[in-house]
Amino acid sequence: MQLYSYFRSSAAYRVRIALNLKGLAYDYVPVHLLKDGGQQLKPEYLRLNPQAMVPTLVDGSAVLTQSMAIIEYLDETHPQPPLLPSTPVARARVRALAQGISCDIHPLNNLRVLRYLKKELDVPDAARDAWYRHWVQTGLLALEHMLADSPDTGVYCHGDSPTLADACLVPQLFNARRLDCDLSAMPVIARIDAACRALPAFEQAAPENQPDAA
Amino acid sequence: MQLYSYFRSSAAYRVRIALNLKGLAYDYVPVHLLKDGGQQLKPEYLRLNPQAMVPTLVDGSAVLTQSMAIIEYLDETHPQPPLLPSTPVARARVRALAQGISCDIHPLNNLRVLRYLKKELDVPDAARDAWYRHWVQTGLLALEHMLADSPDTGVYCHGDSPTLADACLVPQLFNARRLDCDLSAMPVIARIDAACRALPAFEQAAPENQPDAA
Repeated sequence: MQLYSYFRSSAAYRVRIALNLKGLAYDYVPVHLLKDGGQQLKPEYLRLNPQAMVPTLVDGSAVLTQSMAIIEYLDETHPQPPLLPSTPVARARVRALAQGISCDIHPLNNLRVLRYLKKELDVPDAARDAWYRHWVQTGLLALEHMLADSPDTGVYCHGDSPTLADACLVPQLFNARRLDCDLSAMPVIARIDAACRALPAFEQAAPENQPDAA
Repeated sequence: MQLYSYFRSSAAYRVRIALNLKGLAYDYVPVHLLKDGGQQLKPEYLRLNPQAMVPTLVDGSAVLTQSMAIIEYLDETHPQPPLLPSTPVARARVRALAQGISCDIHPLNNLRVLRYLKKELDVPDAARDAWYRHWVQTGLLALEHMLADSPDTGVYCHGDSPTLADACLVPQLFNARRLDCDLSAMPVIARIDAACRALPAFEQAAPENQPDAA
């Protein structure tokens, strides 16, 4: 398998975590989102991923895009260890936690969005950072409630083994710390994030440990 | 089952389509996002959905949030007709198409985001409409390529029966038309949207046919 990745992309980071949790080896193909006017915009990459985003996973003849779809694919093709629980209600809970990040936080703070705010809307840097922190804090506070109020929360977001939800949470927390978001009202999230990052699968997926780390 | 819904919410619209395709009856519980300062912010609703978003689906003792997680749940608990194909690669394709909308278009054009642009960033109405159209057109153009270039595209996004991807596409197209987005470069999307809307399951899920339609 080849993973087209950018070290700091939190969507790529999610898939790296999932690959590591599954114990799957892969070739790392760096796609630098800033160099050469954005390597994700080159025609040869657009043929793989018309959305011009990372990650893309190539598995034999299959070309897979969208981090959440890729992780579900890995869970279906390599079921051990599972990244989703076994019952429909529990699976829905894990997916909802993951989507609370992948749909409701991350897309608002993507590089392309921050660029649009600056270049098209002339938003000053301080207001842009406030935008970033607003969506992180709003989104994570809701997740904190969902985690704190549920008996299903364990060492990790769901029970005592890592799931798709944890693979989304840790990259989002990495971003939150980079932008100095206030996380003091989120003790459950902080505890789960620390538990995850103590695992080699998460540690080896971290941006600073990638071959293209700046 | 009870569906907490707002007629114009495109996330709720997706779930209504899925429920109708499955032939599942449900009680419609309106949550007006604009009235009373936003009924989604009332404490009794926040207990169901700490993210203060629609939809929420209540199925017996299960409280389910996030439209994509809800649709996967419905597909697992009521497998016929399937809303995802059977092979992992095909399932990944359908999920990626769906997420190209649910992660990369819709979250940027949500009511709360448009409000933030206006109230916090003083973005004039014309520039806000341009923002809206930019993300719709960028996102849909990429999807058009993914659909046009694949032999897996049929009458619908994947083959000849509707899937999760179609349940996301039609509500997004409804929004695009409302904001007069230019869809002329997207003939495949336009054809699929029309084919879907000819089905009663989609027609009955349309915003104008909901009990809380303005």
